[in-house]
Amino acid sequence: MTISDLPPRQGYLMPIGGAEDKKAQRVILKRFVQLSGGANARITVIPLASESPAERGRQYCDLFSEMGVQSVDCIQLRNRYEANMPATAALLDNATGIFMTGGDQVKLVSLIGGTLVASKMLSRFKKGATVAGTSAGASAMSLHMIAFGRSGAKPSQRMVQFAPGLGLTDDLIIDQHFRQRDRTGRLMTAVAFNPALIGVGVDEDTALVIAPDGSAEVIGSGTVTVVDGRNMEYTDIHSVKRHYPITVLGMNVQTFGSGTKLASLTLDEPVALPSLKFG
Amino acid sequence: MTISDLPPRQGYLMPIGGAEDKKAQRVILKRFVQLSGGANARITVIPLASESPAERGRQYCDLFSEMGVQSVDCIQLRNRYEANMPATAALLDNATGIFMTGGDQVKLVSLIGGTLVASKMLSRFKKGATVAGTSAGASAMSLHMIAFGRSGAKPSQRMVQFAPGLGLTDDLIIDQHFRQRDRTGRLMTAVAFNPALIGVGVDEDTALVIAPDGSAEVIGSGTVTVVDGRNMEYTDIHSVKRHYPITVLGMNVQTFGSGTKLASLTLDEPVALPSLKFG
Repeated sequence: MTISDLPPRQGYLMPIGGAEDKKAQRVILKRFVQLSGGANARITVIPLASESPAERGRQYCDLFSEMGVQSVDCIQLRNRYEANMPATAALLDNATGIFMTGGDQVKLVSLIGGTLVASKMLSRFKKGATVAGTSAGASAMSLHMIAFGRSGAKPSQRMVQFAPGLGLTDDLIIDQHFRQRDRTGRLMTAVAFNPALIGVGVDEDTALVIAPDGSAEVIGSGTVTVVDGRNMEYTDIHSVKRHYPITVLGMNVQTFGSGTKLASLTLDEPVALPSLKFG
Repeated sequence: MTISDLPPRQGYLMPIGGAEDKKAQRVILKRFVQLSGGANARITVIPLASESPAERGRQYCDLFSEMGVQSVDCIQLRNRYEANMPATAALLDNATGIFMTGGDQVKLVSLIGGTLVASKMLSRFKKGATVAGTSAGASAMSLHMIAFGRSGAKPSQRMVQFAPGLGLTDDLIIDQHFRQRDRTGRLMTAVAFNPALIGVGVDEDTALVIAPDGSAEVIGSGTVTVVDGRNMEYTDIHSVKRHYPITVLGMNVQTFGSGTKLASLTLDEPVALPSLKFG
């Protein structure tokens, strides 16, 4: 697959909940490689969220090489100056698949947000490259990114901290390690702030494969939770102070198991399984 | 001015820092009325951020009527269900000027975010209506909205809390009561999270008048502070914990007095005075 073979439209987006299987079936990583062109895939790894980017970058590069892709590159940089260097961003020029590792999404975004590397990644995605991100790399995809927060099942006002993310998806607030770290409360809180957005909580070793047409599929060993506040009638989030619980009325929380296909996961239509009709 | 008289492009955006003069010269409110069509202006007031929307709505409606506009409407509603009623949103159908009052931006956004009222306001703006907002109404304009935070001159990690805002501006993070409430630190912190955005801090009784072409003018009795992190080299915001101060290197903080004209306030170009050329 070369640049000119990419479809003239947005690529697949694959938020992964962290801790994806790297040794056994590799269901998620295989899907990423396949959607990036299989044996013709040209993968660029962005390990900048990690505490040890060199080590983490090597790990994924070795993995993808072993899986038989055409080429693997890795973006390493120390500061925003380097993130603005054309030579650095050029490593994305031919990418048909881009993979963001885990770590700390604030580290990643404060390092590359607004730089050439971020804009090149976005433009490759808009031109058809597949973008996957695991853990912090999944969170960073959101325009309205969950920067950090607290665990718990019940929403409360200060449970979640937003920051501006990389904007690969405008509509979805992505959360990860979802069931393992008990993050239902913080995702509901996030959506309550502005129910114009849809919350997507991805469990570990699980991915949501979002197609360019807005349809989506759950793969891996866990589940994906969708928090939809568009029909929410009421919240008192503005009047509750600090860590006290908030009230939310009419928020829709759905959990989808592996293999589930969603007909649509965009703000334009209700979240629905292909076999269910709404409205 | 009727709908068909509106220019086929985005309108003027007027974030106001709160406490604008309502009795003496009314410099800011007059400019809003003028940009909305003067004697032909059709104003719609959105007082939903206020603690007492009925009272606050009446206050501004009386003010604008007194200033001789063609018509004034006021949107009053109690819940998101009403914010989705076509009859409510219809009050924006003919608006040439939309005014959002102060109060609590989280209250406003959690009430109308993603509803018909919000999308109608955005579409009127895209078609040329002037949108002004004071205090909370100014903050709510941002796509990445400052929900709340703490005062102080020095940036620190948990100083600012974002939430998804109404999105009248994608590029600017608007803050208000800026000098009066000592908010330099929180705006610098906000920009450090993702330097792809520009921070705009507006003092009380001051407004930034942003023209459709991206040029801008400071009016009123105070100043506007612009925090530009696009050339920021480094921040440790990801590694600093809680309320400890963060390091930011190369962030550009500029203050502009009343009467200043800026050639451009978009991400596409450096922030510049018309008479200064940049590299």
